[in-house]
Amino acid sequence: MLSTMQDIPLTVTRILHHGMTIHGKSTITTWTGEPEPQRRTFAEAGTRATQLANALRDELGVQDDDRVATLMWNNAEHVEAYFAIPSMGAVLHTLNLRLPVEQLVFIVNHAADKVVLVNGSLLPLLAPLLPHLPTVEHIVVSGPGDRSVLDGATARVHEYEELIAGRPTTYDWPELDERRAAAMCYTSGTTGDPKGVVYSHRSIYLHSMQVNMTESMGLTDKDTTLVVVPQFHVNAWGLPHATFMTGISMLMPDRFLQPAPLAEMIEREQPSHAAAVPTIWQGLLAEVTAHGRDISCMKTVTIGGAACPPSLMEAYDKLGVRVVHAWGMTETSPLGSVGHPPAGLTPEEEWPYRVSQGRFPAGVEPRLVGPDGSVLPWDGTSAGELEVRGNWIAGAYYGGITGEPLVPDDKFSPDGWLRTGDVGVISPDGYLTLTDRAKDVIKSGGEWISSVELENALMAHPEVAEAAVVAVPDDKWGERPLATVVLKEGATADYQTLRTFLGESIAKWQLPERWALIPAVPKTSVGKFDKKVIRKQYADGELDVTTL
Amino acid sequence: MLSTMQDIPLTVTRILHHGMTIHGKSTITTWTGEPEPQRRTFAEAGTRATQLANALRDELGVQDDDRVATLMWNNAEHVEAYFAIPSMGAVLHTLNLRLPVEQLVFIVNHAADKVVLVNGSLLPLLAPLLPHLPTVEHIVVSGPGDRSVLDGATARVHEYEELIAGRPTTYDWPELDERRAAAMCYTSGTTGDPKGVVYSHRSIYLHSMQVNMTESMGLTDKDTTLVVVPQFHVNAWGLPHATFMTGISMLMPDRFLQPAPLAEMIEREQPSHAAAVPTIWQGLLAEVTAHGRDISCMKTVTIGGAACPPSLMEAYDKLGVRVVHAWGMTETSPLGSVGHPPAGLTPEEEWPYRVSQGRFPAGVEPRLVGPDGSVLPWDGTSAGELEVRGNWIAGAYYGGITGEPLVPDDKFSPDGWLRTGDVGVISPDGYLTLTDRAKDVIKSGGEWISSVELENALMAHPEVAEAAVVAVPDDKWGERPLATVVLKEGATADYQTLRTFLGESIAKWQLPERWALIPAVPKTSVGKFDKKVIRKQYADGELDVTTL
Repeated sequence: MLSTMQDIPLTVTRILHHGMTIHGKSTITTWTGEPEPQRRTFAEAGTRATQLANALRDELGVQDDDRVATLMWNNAEHVEAYFAIPSMGAVLHTLNLRLPVEQLVFIVNHAADKVVLVNGSLLPLLAPLLPHLPTVEHIVVSGPGDRSVLDGATARVHEYEELIAGRPTTYDWPELDERRAAAMCYTSGTTGDPKGVVYSHRSIYLHSMQVNMTESMGLTDKDTTLVVVPQFHVNAWGLPHATFMTGISMLMPDRFLQPAPLAEMIEREQPSHAAAVPTIWQGLLAEVTAHGRDISCMKTVTIGGAACPPSLMEAYDKLGVRVVHAWGMTETSPLGSVGHPPAGLTPEEEWPYRVSQGRFPAGVEPRLVGPDGSVLPWDGTSAGELEVRGNWIAGAYYGGITGEPLVPDDKFSPDGWLRTGDVGVISPDGYLTLTDRAKDVIKSGGEWISSVELENALMAHPEVAEAAVVAVPDDKWGERPLATVVLKEGATADYQTLRTFLGESIAKWQLPERWALIPAVPKTSVGKFDKKVIRKQYADGELDVTTL
Repeated sequence: MLSTMQDIPLTVTRILHHGMTIHGKSTITTWTGEPEPQRRTFAEAGTRATQLANALRDELGVQDDDRVATLMWNNAEHVEAYFAIPSMGAVLHTLNLRLPVEQLVFIVNHAADKVVLVNGSLLPLLAPLLPHLPTVEHIVVSGPGDRSVLDGATARVHEYEELIAGRPTTYDWPELDERRAAAMCYTSGTTGDPKGVVYSHRSIYLHSMQVNMTESMGLTDKDTTLVVVPQFHVNAWGLPHATFMTGISMLMPDRFLQPAPLAEMIEREQPSHAAAVPTIWQGLLAEVTAHGRDISCMKTVTIGGAACPPSLMEAYDKLGVRVVHAWGMTETSPLGSVGHPPAGLTPEEEWPYRVSQGRFPAGVEPRLVGPDGSVLPWDGTSAGELEVRGNWIAGAYYGGITGEPLVPDDKFSPDGWLRTGDVGVISPDGYLTLTDRAKDVIKSGGEWISSVELENALMAHPEVAEAAVVAVPDDKWGERPLATVVLKEGATADYQTLRTFLGESIAKWQLPERWALIPAVPKTSVGKFDKKVIRKQYADGELDVTTL
């Protein structure tokens, strides 16, 4: 039996129209490094987005489904692109300017971007790549920066402001299918080529509603959010779209992401919220401590992108800034879980909930899958790989313009759930605690051993500087842990001492038999333990391994 | 270009599963009149809903799309029905126990309800109707009340608790199309037969998200809401579904809707929020004033269903309870607009926004249509009929089991918008102020004159007891206002005096030429002005009309 309700597509266009009318007075403030920031209302930005759409269609020939890329910081023009491009039926492709240049070249070609909107300050990054980007027909430059590096480019070069000036302020927006592509973002996979996630109008609309639900960021049009998380990184966690839905004002740092200008814009503009990864908060904390900055205007800040050290959360608590931990990834739009503690607890009781990855909203259905493929209970101890299902969760990757969607077995289950690659436990009341990456977990006799847990326990020993634990093949158990340890200078602890120490906090069957002292743990370019290298050293017999 | 996102139906089933797991500890507390209320967690209620679905299928033979009616107060069992029935693929039909019995009989037959779940306390209402309800095969009784009135019924009679006891606590819920019927509610139309609105899983899911957005009720799992608005009235404004989405606990008054027990349950259970129509709040205010009750636990209360008198809002403000005004109707699920003022205003500046009908969320697109059918600007002065569009807005009425959907011209525009029948203005910043019902507005020479505005202005005169203004035919202008006035005892004001008084606040072209003194304004059974009667008296020449 069918309902009698209207059926209206959930589109970015609707969010744009709503934001520029009902919330027309809300503002986007962009830091410029000048005495005054740039200030623009949602009504003005929405009108300019409309002019941009007209320009893209009439001047640049952008058509349905054409990919329009952005290589931009967080600023008002980037927000305008966020609305203009999907609303006209084209696809916004945000380019991650932190990617290695080979990967940047790969994704522009893979997406076959026709246009690149670029900030002038990023031209030195883009210009050298242009000879390798044959699909790019137009470059639209916005903001300060030397244009001469584009001399000789074969693509046509436009100035953003000149391009939109005088264009019509209305657009006969198409009525789009809500399942149609609206935006895309490539993962920065450490192995293999980057993979493209293509967000739909439906997924962005529903995700925007979720961001505005009380259990997520909980902001209103009385709030201003400092959007530090880049717009080139999972749509700035959905904030530009979500803010237009409820009128939250935005403070945009553009390229001024260093602790000193961040502290200055917080003091001057008084945002009530901010969103960023832990490293930003580490840097800001040092700035606040060193120079006595006052950032107490921020009632809450959302931290995600990596696990937040509890010490960092405590430090912000003391400044009167409440840290809310969240978990997500490019494939989850990214809002996966949020660390609001349950009701009725003391601050001490809230703590383990706050440092967990948090609780799932109704739109994200989780399950833990164990080593044998079975679905595990939520008992706080059964560790499995986290799989998720929902409307703003990817079910495939972009296969390129001529190909089928990519559905790698190791990324999606046969019944369509996203395999997150994260291993953890879920408590009986639904809180997620991640313990490891699936690729680093040790699969021993049908049970999983967390390498991270062993490492943390080892590094708690006063004579251990660093420790990395990896899985190595074992005839009897399939895999067993190998502990590689860097001792502090002058340390005298032997393996048996360390193993006994480990045994105080770790179950006996999980204790490593194989041990090796190493001079330093090999690291990736971003400073993470590079366990691939250790596994290879072990396989190649390069480590001096003692078996207890 | 298609996205790579998963496509998961938005269903009530998903809300049920989420609420009973992630928010399993949240509670439904039902008032019983006994020393202790009934307390049940979401986990328990969800399990019982699952058992109910098993019973309805296995014992009562309920199949896909069968209508299962409820004639119940607000209580935990009614919440269980809210989830069991839609989740199994059947259709929940909430019966409004305040309807005239002829209309109750009409809607049960029109919906062809197969089962009626009924509270024991409501059997005296149901039993006499049963001979007229041939489609009803099963009656399921819950809660206290004399069952003997059902003696001799042809339908099979079941006890709710016995029916679900021992049933399986799991159910292989079907994967439902999100556009499928989930629930239905008939309007209590004052003219003609009641009309059925059929909510879909999609509309309920999206509406639930909206209720949980910061710009709506803004509650979290730290809150308890006192749900006074009946579950038989537009799904209790969506609260039972919305609370399962974010874990808001519910306090349910069952049949104890009188001011004294309401005050008592507030004092004892300390809800942080409540939702009800203005008459409930009037009664509670009198109780609080007379007996010094403390209801300050409620941070906010949502008032809707009828315009809330500003004096009532002020009285609650003084008690420390913030009143939030909302507008909606059965056809809008009902969340249409909410009266949160914009940012940055003083309490005095906020006031006109708070007493307005409020601001629309992104999911409800409004337009004002003027007398000539043109769409009017949002200038705060152009008055038109409010039309709305969105996923939780009806686009038709239920046509009965063999019929097509009903799409009356006077209720839906040719392009599918709902004609609300309300006339008002929208401010430049998107706030709605309703001034009249469309049927009562005076259409004079292509402009609209608000009868309510003229009445309020007239009743402000110290010698006027009551005044009703209706449209009467006019050769030159199409329609003109007729003012019927009830003077206070001993009053001496003549028509010219009243007209001059009106002219101080009303534009000259709107002033009535036709006047009549009447002994009392005719009223409907619920105490509203019955303008049909006045129009008929005028047409029949029964009024002593003076033309100035």
